[in-house]
Amino acid sequence: MGAPDKGARRSGSTRRQFLLGGTVAGVGAAAAVGIDLALTTPSGTTAAAPSTPLNGSEIVPFHGIHQAGIDTDAQAHGTFVALDLRDEVDRDGLRRLMRILTDDAERLTQGRGALADSEPELALTPARLTVTFAFGPGFVARAAGTAPAWLQPLPAFAVDRLQDEFSHGDLLIQVAADDPLTVAHATRMLLKDARSFTTVRWTQQGFRRAYGSVAPGTTMRNLFGQVDGTSNPKPGTTEFDTVVWAGEGWLTGGTGMVVRRIHMNLDKWDKLDRSGREQSVGRTLSNGAPLTGTQEHDEPDFEAKTSVGFPVIPEFSHMRRARPDDTTQRIFRRAYNYDERPAGSDVSDSGLVFVSFQADVDAQFTPIQRRLDDLDLLNEWTTPIGSAVFAVPPGCAEGGYIGETLLA
Amino acid sequence: MGAPDKGARRSGSTRRQFLLGGTVAGVGAAAAVGIDLALTTPSGTTAAAPSTPLNGSEIVPFHGIHQAGIDTDAQAHGTFVALDLRDEVDRDGLRRLMRILTDDAERLTQGRGALADSEPELALTPARLTVTFAFGPGFVARAAGTAPAWLQPLPAFAVDRLQDEFSHGDLLIQVAADDPLTVAHATRMLLKDARSFTTVRWTQQGFRRAYGSVAPGTTMRNLFGQVDGTSNPKPGTTEFDTVVWAGEGWLTGGTGMVVRRIHMNLDKWDKLDRSGREQSVGRTLSNGAPLTGTQEHDEPDFEAKTSVGFPVIPEFSHMRRARPDDTTQRIFRRAYNYDERPAGSDVSDSGLVFVSFQADVDAQFTPIQRRLDDLDLLNEWTTPIGSAVFAVPPGCAEGGYIGETLLA
Ligand code: HEM
Ligand code: HEM
Repeated sequence: MGAPDKGARRSGSTRRQFLLGGTVAGVGAAAAVGIDLALTTPSGTTAAAPSTPLNGSEIVPFHGIHQAGIDTDAQAHGTFVALDLRDEVDRDGLRRLMRILTDDAERLTQGRGALADSEPELALTPARLTVTFAFGPGFVARAAGTAPAWLQPLPAFAVDRLQDEFSHGDLLIQVAADDPLTVAHATRMLLKDARSFTTVRWTQQGFRRAYGSVAPGTTMRNLFGQVDGTSNPKPGTTEFDTVVWAGEGWLTGGTGMVVRRIHMNLDKWDKLDRSGREQSVGRTLSNGAPLTGTQEHDEPDFEAKTSVGFPVIPEFSHMRRARPDDTTQRIFRRAYNYDERPAGSDVSDSGLVFVSFQADVDAQFTPIQRRLDDLDLLNEWTTPIGSAVFAVPPGCAEGGYIGETLLA
Repeated sequence: MGAPDKGARRSGSTRRQFLLGGTVAGVGAAAAVGIDLALTTPSGTTAAAPSTPLNGSEIVPFHGIHQAGIDTDAQAHGTFVALDLRDEVDRDGLRRLMRILTDDAERLTQGRGALADSEPELALTPARLTVTFAFGPGFVARAAGTAPAWLQPLPAFAVDRLQDEFSHGDLLIQVAADDPLTVAHATRMLLKDARSFTTVRWTQQGFRRAYGSVAPGTTMRNLFGQVDGTSNPKPGTTEFDTVVWAGEGWLTGGTGMVVRRIHMNLDKWDKLDRSGREQSVGRTLSNGAPLTGTQEHDEPDFEAKTSVGFPVIPEFSHMRRARPDDTTQRIFRRAYNYDERPAGSDVSDSGLVFVSFQADVDAQFTPIQRRLDDLDLLNEWTTPIGSAVFAVPPGCAEGGYIGETLLA
């Protein structure tokens, strides 16, 4: 579900750098030099800079008006951890917690160890690491802040089979990078520091194609084999800014985040023939083109009819149902595949860590989900088993901390 | 635990190609072209070949006297699945099973879909995919073959806390590639075809640094932050061939494989200071140099004493205990890190999918493990929780199948 154009990859960072007048670019560049040296010296290989820069040393700026990890071209690995606040943590505690976590995130994303990092060498390969924090209803209540009306569990949907172990939470941390060891290390450092304030409620791990595995800008595929993320607002456009960034109160520059764990029944999916699969979404499997077109980004023609008078793109196809007539109902999807060690004799335990960002969850996400709940051919093979809603606070400048607009 | 020299990366493949007189190289190259086109066309981006080849299109030859995935420079992601044979599968059934799985592996590793692949598009990015098959005692018995004396569960060790859910099995499939989606898809295709013959006993998933994340030839780090794999036979050398490849009967050109799941207690490890950690292994954390040296590959000096007369490399350090005086006790390690969704309020569930290859498990592996069991400072922080031993049959030529030397 990444942005489909080659140029978008750095656009988020560029915008953040621009807004901060170049300060961040300086920090990033300096850190990058340190890392190249650190990476090449330890193992005794040549200390000369490698001819092509290693993607392990690529850095996404941390500071900015928005948090990174939203308009950042999605990295290959993402871990999502939902924490619950311990009873005794008060507003002061929240402030302390967010100052510590901000400091950790700032260091780790720039390729430096966390304060008192227990494995500092594992921090030297940022690989585009981003750490994004988001607040659940419980966090905002504890902060005695005003929660946006949409910051609550989604309404119940008929398709839902929600499990508590994958739902809700007071504080979400999204840790994403192109290297799985980087993600594991950063997650652990953050959780160590969060430990005296919180308990772990759930963890979800996901992946997309490895960095450099397919051409930059290639839309990801999910485990059904579908091109997934074609019709998505593009970071750096006005549409993206309108869809994603919130404009009110402490959330100004922030956004709303929905995380749903959706199990995909691959065995059942495999029983469907290729044309049935393509009809269920309204797009081809080979390149994601709408059934009325030939290229991925062709505009679908929902009026086109087959020779016998049926719509070429079925009325109940996922794309048709998900696409709003009302253009305010748009969301930005940034999902990860999951594929876990199956229990017992199962062949796989797979699905999507569905993640979407939108300024107003009630106005933008819920109507789409409601339509899909009513009717969506894809429902036959997908089951939501976890659900959570969070408010993503804006980014911060150097010296500040994430959550300061709510907690200061 | 990869080979530490830049040149080693392709040496396994080259050797296989050479031995088959170039046939395999032809197949690989042809397939590679198909893939480049397939990769760039679907998403509507340019159809011209990318300027640097995508690592997603890199292919490891399947055919050869040895199976791939052993002397192949370790890929970023590895999934290990142990299967148990269904009661009704006889010798003929084993032959049918291995013919089918060989065909799947051959196609998938060359970037083509499996026969009747349900998601053929996911097969177009081989990313150095290898599929390696290995037989447990039950498989060889069912085949009425002669099992090498070492093909049985390892003796019990005092440190062991083995769980059945991570131990033993009749047939092991190791699926490894630089792309996690490729591994997920290939694993699934293989398991679908194995299903009527076998049930899944256990699955373990692991990772190393992403491809291109650190300089080629950099030794991997484990989740303790240690450089892990320094002292390891190097593919392409006589030492490697002597340590790894077996020379008798149906196993000629094959090897012995030990898979042990070793939990690493990161929380406890973090309580130890840096010098204590370095002493526990006998190497520095910064670059893996022996405590008597400065560079990773410096020869350790076990005689060197501190000013107060103690050995600089502690007598009970992991390196000292693991290194045999008897040079026949050598093994080739090719491990993966694991870091799973922790249960309950745990911060992490991490460790090593320890994998070693050696011609004779009893003569080479067991004495080392016995010494480590008796005394090894590292035991304080590591616990074996799974264990399995397999015989890896040799590779096959085109038209043949893996296991034919046992089953034909
Ligand atoms: C496992 C579950 C799901 C799968 C496999 C899936 C798959 C897809 C695919 C293949 C497409 C077409 C390509 C594209 O534009 O991305 C698509 C489009 C879309 N999906 Fe989903 N989806 C899932 C769940 C959801 C959910 C829960 C929502 C929101 C409630 C959603 C919202 C959308 C939207 C808004 C589009 C774009 C429609 C358009 O304007 O063309 N999807 N999805
Ligand atoms: C979680 C468990 C383990 C960890 C964290 C670990 C870590 C390490 C480290 C850091 C080194 C030094 C660098 C190197 O040469 O690779 C090493 C060396 C070695 N380890 Fe382990 N190891 C583990 C388990 C084992 C086991 C189970 C065996 C075999 C029974 C083993 C056999 C060896 C050998 C043979 C060496 C090389 C010794 C030498 O000749 O210098 N290790 N290990």
